[in-house]
Amino acid sequence: MAVGLKEPSRLYRVDGIRVGTARGGIRYRDREDVAVFEIAQGSHCAAVFTRNAFLAAPVTVAREHLAAAAPRYLLINTGNANAGTGARGVRDARACCQSLAGQTGVAATEVLPFSTGVIGEPLPLEPFGRAIEAAIAALDPEGWTRAARAIMTTDTVPKGASRRASWGGEACTITGIAKGSGMIRPDMATMLAFIGTDARVAPDLLQSALEHAVARSFNRITVDGDTSTNDACVLMATGRSAAPPLKRETSEGYRAFLKALDDLCAELAQMLVRDAEGATRFVTVRVTGGGREGECLDVAYAIAHSPLVKTAFFAGDPNWGRILAAVGRAGLRDLAIDKIRIWLDDVCVVDAGERAPSYTEAQGVRVMSQEAFTVHVELGRGEAEATVWTSDLSYDYVKINAEYRT
Amino acid sequence: MAVGLKEPSRLYRVDGIRVGTARGGIRYRDREDVAVFEIAQGSHCAAVFTRNAFLAAPVTVAREHLAAAAPRYLLINTGNANAGTGARGVRDARACCQSLAGQTGVAATEVLPFSTGVIGEPLPLEPFGRAIEAAIAALDPEGWTRAARAIMTTDTVPKGASRRASWGGEACTITGIAKGSGMIRPDMATMLAFIGTDARVAPDLLQSALEHAVARSFNRITVDGDTSTNDACVLMATGRSAAPPLKRETSEGYRAFLKALDDLCAELAQMLVRDAEGATRFVTVRVTGGGREGECLDVAYAIAHSPLVKTAFFAGDPNWGRILAAVGRAGLRDLAIDKIRIWLDDVCVVDAGERAPSYTEAQGVRVMSQEAFTVHVELGRGEAEATVWTSDLSYDYVKINAEYRT
Repeated sequence: MAVGLKEPSRLYRVDGIRVGTARGGIRYRDREDVAVFEIAQGSHCAAVFTRNAFLAAPVTVAREHLAAAAPRYLLINTGNANAGTGARGVRDARACCQSLAGQTGVAATEVLPFSTGVIGEPLPLEPFGRAIEAAIAALDPEGWTRAARAIMTTDTVPKGASRRASWGGEACTITGIAKGSGMIRPDMATMLAFIGTDARVAPDLLQSALEHAVARSFNRITVDGDTSTNDACVLMATGRSAAPPLKRETSEGYRAFLKALDDLCAELAQMLVRDAEGATRFVTVRVTGGGREGECLDVAYAIAHSPLVKTAFFAGDPNWGRILAAVGRAGLRDLAIDKIRIWLDDVCVVDAGERAPSYTEAQGVRVMSQEAFTVHVELGRGEAEATVWTSDLSYDYVKINAEYRT
Repeated sequence: MAVGLKEPSRLYRVDGIRVGTARGGIRYRDREDVAVFEIAQGSHCAAVFTRNAFLAAPVTVAREHLAAAAPRYLLINTGNANAGTGARGVRDARACCQSLAGQTGVAATEVLPFSTGVIGEPLPLEPFGRAIEAAIAALDPEGWTRAARAIMTTDTVPKGASRRASWGGEACTITGIAKGSGMIRPDMATMLAFIGTDARVAPDLLQSALEHAVARSFNRITVDGDTSTNDACVLMATGRSAAPPLKRETSEGYRAFLKALDDLCAELAQMLVRDAEGATRFVTVRVTGGGREGECLDVAYAIAHSPLVKTAFFAGDPNWGRILAAVGRAGLRDLAIDKIRIWLDDVCVVDAGERAPSYTEAQGVRVMSQEAFTVHVELGRGEAEATVWTSDLSYDYVKINAEYRT
């Protein structure tokens, strides 16, 4: 069902990072469901986590460990989210870290745990020991692609991308993988992303680079408006590249690095939407002419979350009245209706708040029969703008989510 | 598909109000689609309208007319919402009022227009003259039930209810009809309701009674979180009852009247949810223990709008993790997870923020296999509470909304 999405053909290795995968049988019996990242000593990590008030146990533990030590390993499992599992869940997440730490000779605080899958069921601990052992045995600088597959839940296609950036005459590499296909929206919902780079970046700069990129990528996509208790995005930097170290936001090198990271995250984020549960369309919602970026986002999300708009996307039905109604309920004060314009790709469908005189239904149908198109709303009240990416609401969305546990 | 909903068996006539219906052929060819209410001289009306910034033309005109004169007629059509139609739409709505006014000898400002149906297409004026003539010829104090049918769009069952209240040894009658089965949520989304009473109520008291009732009924239901450009709820009071006139909020008579009106509106509102597009479940979401009513509503709507929760309702799947995740993203500051309790009817599924020790999946399945059940969330941080009513998200919701225009 993925819209215009293919498996990543080649993910560059990142010097100082090895990736191993294994079959744990935690929920899925016929595939790999555990992944381990090994990060060379001297590296450091930045991370962002879900803003859902219900933090899954692994998120609680990962934040603790990240504050205590520089991570040497990431441990990821699919099939069980270890969320809504209370004190036992936290003990279980710690036990998994301890198991990996014991087998590799690091401290448990040097391991960050990540889980995704069903909420509210205890994490079965028994499979972890053997699975961790197997994943460690499989550690490989080329392991990214297998890990992209091992972290999938309802994803239909593994997701990964690579970039290179250069400054000071030397190159660095950035490679990332991600999973998630529902419950995606701002605030990092049910999404895991693991990004590695060999760039040398000062720790505080690494965190602000990650936050910059996430704000323009993973926090600009929405499938169903739900958010998850488990989301996390980690950026590992090994510092092994020969490119000069990045210490200041104003440096040319940092700008090159940030551009590559922004690009990579945008590509991964769009992959998540293209593989959204039941998606048959990939829709870019662009809102311009706002007084502030925040109000552009309010309008964009009102459109992107509207079940009526999303079912019209599914039907390929240019029902612009539903888009207009969504703009109208986005909560903007003093919205001047007669300044609103709406385009479907290059076709102007609404002008001065009503159907454009030149518009014909055939034009709208032509645009919306495509797999991918843009809805552009001009508010006519300022210079701010914002873009979000979303999918349609199809029979298969209902089917997937009605049957996920059964 | 309507959940536990039957056609109203008997709607009481309201002295001073006659109702007529006719076939206009505006969109539907094989059914009545125009309704006219005739309100006796000396009556007055209260009304609430959509808060969507895009007001449909008939809403603009109805508000103008209501400010100018006491209404003598309501004119309702289905099939075309006359929304997103700009200046032409307003002219068309006025022309319809003028047509009815010309045939009955009242001023055009004494007619309130209401439209529901497809957005963004010009209202076809040609059918209105004959349809209005036929509806006037059909005016009948017993016409409520036929009107309940004539105002339907995607509704599958006509909706109406009656109540009686007494004070000072005399009775009054309240009868109402409503339509709407999608785009329903707070702010009066795609919903029309017309309520008549023979009580004698001071105009300002009538308006506050209506707002009181709407706040606890039509503004507490949600199907898909969308709102419409056309919603309206009108309360007509003819003053022909022998019950003493109501002039003060503190009077015993007003309390009796208000209780009956609240009851009636709650019944109509729940009928709308029971007939929600594609609905197979009727779910009451009750949130208690909040610091303020507003935060209880935030939590209730986060649950009631979550596509993941709604597909679980559809599947009859007690996936309480999705409910818990919705509570967690409702935006409450300093939410103490370990105080959260969740029940499905009488079954405690979450205690202290995690699965209740006594809970078994079989208990949850038993509750959620019913057509109607209650999700109760206790926040443990105060005394406030709020209740909303919602439906599930089914294949048929997608089907109905993907095919509505085709």
